[in-house]
Amino acid sequence: MRAAIFRNGEIVVDQLPEPAPGAGQVLVKALACGICGSDLHARKHAHRMVEMSKRLPGRKPMDLTRDIVFGHEFCCEILDCGPSTTGRLKPGTRVCSMPALLTPTGPVGIGYSNDNIGGYAERMLLSEALLLEVPNGLASEHAALTEPLAVGIRAVEKANARGDEVPLVIGCGPVGLAVIAALKLRGLAPIIAADYSPARRALAEKLGAEIVVDPAQTHPYATWAGHATMSDAEKAARPAFQAFLPALKPALIFECVGVPGLIQQVFEGAPRDARIVVVGVCMETDRFEPMLGIMKELNVQYVLGYTPEEFARSLRLIADGEVDAASLVTAKVGIDGVAQAFEDLANPEAHTKIIVEPWR
Amino acid sequence: MRAAIFRNGEIVVDQLPEPAPGAGQVLVKALACGICGSDLHARKHAHRMVEMSKRLPGRKPMDLTRDIVFGHEFCCEILDCGPSTTGRLKPGTRVCSMPALLTPTGPVGIGYSNDNIGGYAERMLLSEALLLEVPNGLASEHAALTEPLAVGIRAVEKANARGDEVPLVIGCGPVGLAVIAALKLRGLAPIIAADYSPARRALAEKLGAEIVVDPAQTHPYATWAGHATMSDAEKAARPAFQAFLPALKPALIFECVGVPGLIQQVFEGAPRDARIVVVGVCMETDRFEPMLGIMKELNVQYVLGYTPEEFARSLRLIADGEVDAASLVTAKVGIDGVAQAFEDLANPEAHTKIIVEPWR
Repeated sequence: MRAAIFRNGEIVVDQLPEPAPGAGQVLVKALACGICGSDLHARKHAHRMVEMSKRLPGRKPMDLTRDIVFGHEFCCEILDCGPSTTGRLKPGTRVCSMPALLTPTGPVGIGYSNDNIGGYAERMLLSEALLLEVPNGLASEHAALTEPLAVGIRAVEKANARGDEVPLVIGCGPVGLAVIAALKLRGLAPIIAADYSPARRALAEKLGAEIVVDPAQTHPYATWAGHATMSDAEKAARPAFQAFLPALKPALIFECVGVPGLIQQVFEGAPRDARIVVVGVCMETDRFEPMLGIMKELNVQYVLGYTPEEFARSLRLIADGEVDAASLVTAKVGIDGVAQAFEDLANPEAHTKIIVEPWR
Repeated sequence: MRAAIFRNGEIVVDQLPEPAPGAGQVLVKALACGICGSDLHARKHAHRMVEMSKRLPGRKPMDLTRDIVFGHEFCCEILDCGPSTTGRLKPGTRVCSMPALLTPTGPVGIGYSNDNIGGYAERMLLSEALLLEVPNGLASEHAALTEPLAVGIRAVEKANARGDEVPLVIGCGPVGLAVIAALKLRGLAPIIAADYSPARRALAEKLGAEIVVDPAQTHPYATWAGHATMSDAEKAARPAFQAFLPALKPALIFECVGVPGLIQQVFEGAPRDARIVVVGVCMETDRFEPMLGIMKELNVQYVLGYTPEEFARSLRLIADGEVDAASLVTAKVGIDGVAQAFEDLANPEAHTKIIVEPWR
């Protein structure tokens, strides 16, 4: 079968052996698979990713001398069920799954692995137990957005919002947009979002941001403060010793960029007592001033992934039309288009989410 | 009057004009004032501290070309009440106070200020409204420990412990020891504490640590894990998708050292989902790997200071004998001994808390 393969630091198209389902596994046809910012990161910083994996228990790092097929945001069609499956979903059924295979020693990842082929290939293997049927006749390219939306759902979940916070989203790439959609569903308002790209800001508004900021023109934290003034009742409810502090509602800041320097920038801009959720995946060593965190008593929650429940909820939300997933998809390519798509995604004006359709 | 003055980067003894209480203020005699690690930091990194102050709203940075008297952990005796005071506490009364003066535009700090003299002087000014009477005939040198203990009380408060966490305290200087005392009062167990100094480890045990670790001999996080195994009931209560993760109780890690590299060290050692409370004040720019935080979904709470309630509670706890404050004091010096005390505090084997008695 054909696949877009990560080989020697580049994306190349080549043939791979046909995968054969093991116990509890199903063979599926990849219908649609989103290209994730982490895939772009992984291509650029593969050695770094391997190094990090080695330092965490229970992870099998990629062997970069061997082939890897990326792709962990997929919607597939069941072709065949392997041994020891229940057959609860028949061949022909369209499914989503968390990008993991269940094994006797625990789940292992799909997409950043030499063994487990991701969604940039014609066919792949999934664990039957993890399959979720795509409901409501939802288009496969939109079902493939389940994974990135789940990241936003997770981030907002981990933020432990009480409901009185004013959120600020830094960066409106797919991660930031997923966070905005999840914040909207959570009912936090007004949602303030910042991105240098006009196209991204327009998408942020489409997904639920009430106020968008171009950081080249306006300081996002000043805009935030302008929309976070306490009511007189809230002011009166403050302890006496806080009476001289700026009368601002609690800040909930989502860092959705993931490049070095961003955490320091958030530390500089954040108001006192801000809670910061780091969703952007910065793979490089970073520099920051802990003293800013200390003097402002900041809280930083790092997040990654999602629970099975959050993943399933994400699919339902898209299928129920609660999230305007369609607006995220800016292009669709076949296996031959993956390498170029990686280049094209560097331009935020042109693209948000490119979907790979390996059957094309 | 005489004072130990921070002048041109050094601690020198000289005469200062006698302070005169303004509206709402009392003139007090400094009976005992602890030397804080932040004072040592401030002497070494004064320019850095000024730079940070300039970047935070509402703070008046120190002018390093003018005299400054450090000292913000004090117990005093009222000498005279200024205009517009109520006289609720009479001259002769021993008092503690948060290191701040109330002004019409908000509180301003005592001890890192050109205007507000700290406790390394014979006399100083306090705001009558902030005074707390020293109860139970508590010794002044122990009442002076109210401030550092309040830092520990605050840190444990901000940790939002549920009660099932196993705490690990990194660094057993005065801050770490205060955290240990506060954890003991909070009922978290077992308390695991790490420090390279045998004397500090002995003190940690005295204040409530059940297990102490010498990081030169044993990995603190391995020791922590050895004491954090889940019970069978806790294991059974985990969601299915967590069944393959190490069966460890929640980690609550207190970073009480405050030098560059420590946060990265904690990020490397911390187990998945750990909550980290940063109490050590690192004034330099620091380097760390956000990716470790992301892959482990760490939470970092930075803390500073305390509320008036936490401060008052701290004094009561010492006065009621709930905290063995006495064991922290390793020496007492007069104004002439402050400069040498700053040097001596570099040796953790010799000293923990040195108390300045400016009346000597």
